[in-house]
Amino acid sequence: MDRKNDDSRLLLEQVNDLLENNKVLELRELLEEYHTMDILDVMEDLDEEMKVKLFEVLPIDVSASILEESGSDFFRTMLSLIDVQHGRNILEQMSLDDLTDILSELEEDEKQRIINLLNKEDAEDVKKLLGYEEESTGGIMTTGYIEVNENMTAKEAIEHMRKHAEDAETIYYIYVVDDDEKLVGVLSLRELITARDSVVVTDLMSENIISVYDDDDRELAVKLVSKYDLIAIPVVDRDNVLRGIITVDDIIDVMEEEATEDLYKLAGSSEHERDVAEKPNSTMLEQIASSVRARIPWLILILIGGLFTAIILTKTTFVEGLTYVKFLCFVPVILGMGGSVGMQASSLTIMTLSNNEENIDFKTVLKEGAVGLITGLVCSIIIGIMAYVILNNLNMAIVIAICVLINMVVGSMIGSFTPLMLKHLSGDISIISSPLISVLLDMIGVVLFFIITTIFLSKIVL
Amino acid sequence: MDRKNDDSRLLLEQVNDLLENNKVLELRELLEEYHTMDILDVMEDLDEEMKVKLFEVLPIDVSASILEESGSDFFRTMLSLIDVQHGRNILEQMSLDDLTDILSELEEDEKQRIINLLNKEDAEDVKKLLGYEEESTGGIMTTGYIEVNENMTAKEAIEHMRKHAEDAETIYYIYVVDDDEKLVGVLSLRELITARDSVVVTDLMSENIISVYDDDDRELAVKLVSKYDLIAIPVVDRDNVLRGIITVDDIIDVMEEEATEDLYKLAGSSEHERDVAEKPNSTMLEQIASSVRARIPWLILILIGGLFTAIILTKTTFVEGLTYVKFLCFVPVILGMGGSVGMQASSLTIMTLSNNEENIDFKTVLKEGAVGLITGLVCSIIIGIMAYVILNNLNMAIVIAICVLINMVVGSMIGSFTPLMLKHLSGDISIISSPLISVLLDMIGVVLFFIITTIFLSKIVL
Repeated sequence: MDRKNDDSRLLLEQVNDLLENNKVLELRELLEEYHTMDILDVMEDLDEEMKVKLFEVLPIDVSASILEESGSDFFRTMLSLIDVQHGRNILEQMSLDDLTDILSELEEDEKQRIINLLNKEDAEDVKKLLGYEEESTGGIMTTGYIEVNENMTAKEAIEHMRKHAEDAETIYYIYVVDDDEKLVGVLSLRELITARDSVVVTDLMSENIISVYDDDDRELAVKLVSKYDLIAIPVVDRDNVLRGIITVDDIIDVMEEEATEDLYKLAGSSEHERDVAEKPNSTMLEQIASSVRARIPWLILILIGGLFTAIILTKTTFVEGLTYVKFLCFVPVILGMGGSVGMQASSLTIMTLSNNEENIDFKTVLKEGAVGLITGLVCSIIIGIMAYVILNNLNMAIVIAICVLINMVVGSMIGSFTPLMLKHLSGDISIISSPLISVLLDMIGVVLFFIITTIFLSKIVL
Repeated sequence: MDRKNDDSRLLLEQVNDLLENNKVLELRELLEEYHTMDILDVMEDLDEEMKVKLFEVLPIDVSASILEESGSDFFRTMLSLIDVQHGRNILEQMSLDDLTDILSELEEDEKQRIINLLNKEDAEDVKKLLGYEEESTGGIMTTGYIEVNENMTAKEAIEHMRKHAEDAETIYYIYVVDDDEKLVGVLSLRELITARDSVVVTDLMSENIISVYDDDDRELAVKLVSKYDLIAIPVVDRDNVLRGIITVDDIIDVMEEEATEDLYKLAGSSEHERDVAEKPNSTMLEQIASSVRARIPWLILILIGGLFTAIILTKTTFVEGLTYVKFLCFVPVILGMGGSVGMQASSLTIMTLSNNEENIDFKTVLKEGAVGLITGLVCSIIIGIMAYVILNNLNMAIVIAICVLINMVVGSMIGSFTPLMLKHLSGDISIISSPLISVLLDMIGVVLFFIITTIFLSKIVL
């Protein structure tokens, strides 16, 4: 990894140098041997002006790949800054599934403006792709596949393949259709190039096709590609007409997305929070707002559960008249709220650390503190009111509310600080597990409770 | 999906029929159009005798693929039952990375016996592969790649490729080495077949190779394949000599493994527990034993944290003399233990449900109950002793111990029952999140505490 990092720092310096001196040809030559993703890495580190300058001198196919990989903001900015015809040429080279994904994030009028720039065929394909649900196989498929008619000879098929190879996402599988465009077979490039010229495709192809419907859940495509070790899987409609393919790189992207989605769900947050956290240029305020929005429903749910616990517990305190004992019944919910918000903070931090390290530092602890403060204020007001109703003692209700608030602020800061510190000290965060964090948070919570009640003791033991 | 299930039931019946009537040729013909994974599915549903019979009539390449995908038990059984020369032929066709994975699970003498069956070249490769750490890139790479010398022409390279295509895991990337076997470039099949015959490979290849070292962590290979959308990544040693490749299907397997590994870790369990839970023929006792072993260290850690909480809380109970108030201080740890074991049970159930549905049913609830009982006995003895030391009241200590025990048994049963029931009712378990389960478990825990203390009330309020 160090090797790679050194390389990319060096490349960044070189690119900056050449851009400043307007050495376009040398720059093109230098970048020729680099992968699109490396150029994209360099681009992200350049300032706005240099970014546009670099983008303008890149070859069209590289520009297209860059747009495929970067977000919709970058796409919009670049296309509005460069010459319309240049933009058209780049759009023509873009993979349609990636283009569709970006378009689906744009405003309606912008979307229409871009579609008008496309050639007729692409425009139609994109419109069709835009019609699919995001979570369906249709939503991740591309139309960049090679199909041949079942009656072609191997020689004709190879010629056809060579002609259409440029627009194809993969040429390693060739799909065979009948005269009604129905999928009837699949051929690997391997089989095709080792076949005699005169063999008819029907005799060469495998008829046992593993395919998905265009309205299937995309997880089905993941399962099948994984089970059968495929490089691509064809997508057909309910009439078995071939509509597109999903390539293995998109399957990997879906797997990564679903894995973090599941983790967020389990931790009591939402995908939206991650999207904002990993967006390179989201502001602190945006991040705090999205975190609060994602977590507050879960926290309120936990709060209601905790209040139920407290109420049941007060029923077991058969020592009548001693309100202080009833006060103690609120300890589980106080600890629970700090622990919950802390778990959310630590899960988010762990996930961001393992996905996108550059995007996170100790400022996160402050951000989490702010999230804890806002969610804590909401929860402490609710619990304060409820505690007053149950205990009929204002001082105790206030102390409980203060405990919840401080516990939630501290809990979320500790929750995010722990993985960051471990990463900083040992580089390894895989030793953290959820019981470990929850034990830590419970201990901190009870110590805070001890300190706070001791301070307010004279007020509550009346 | 229903379509697929119907298909496989039909296939199973047909295969059983043909096997019983010894119609070998018809059977071969039938299976010709099926994917190895489908044949493996059928095989798993056959009884032992039919399994061997089917395996014997399969073509050698299909048998090899079947062995690659099935576990080491199946591998050992089959190879000991079939003719030695037939076994040799099958081994020859197996992918070396899969063969190595299986061998690494066998006893030393069995391992040696299999290696002796291999041809010299394969045996050497396997021995080298066996030397790598399981978590390193070397541990998942295969030697089934195509390499050409940089000085070959495109025509020579294509001929070379065709000759070696059979042993290769992928022919879509061709790796270019110099006379010292050092990796100097990479060529896609696409570039090669569209090149003029006389072009020298050096002029065709890309020199910007994305590769990993054979002692790198395998997660680095996953990152690079995912980032650069590769179909395979070459593995070199520290002298840049090409040692193997990792293909995208193995990358997907690693991703799946790591994702569940992370989830297990987060839930406070271990990979070993999952392995046993997903093994098709593990006994109930094996499963219980592995679950107890995996979870008890975390549970004891949580118990210690909970005791710390209880001790701190007793310090805030400034109402001297009232032991009952101190007794209440144990509520958080009682709820915590039930919640923790319940979370472990529900995480395991959710993961098994999403990975391998056939392997789990309502018997799991009983299994989890047993796990809760064993871990609960250990934890309740510890907490009982500690409670007696702290409270100096035997009756209260016993009630606390009973509460922990019952809470842990019920918690683990509810934790596994909830996702199973949701799956059964709605088919969708993605609506479950960890806060939801923990709220539910807390509520159940506190109700149980209420019931138990009410029953023993006369004993503890003395």
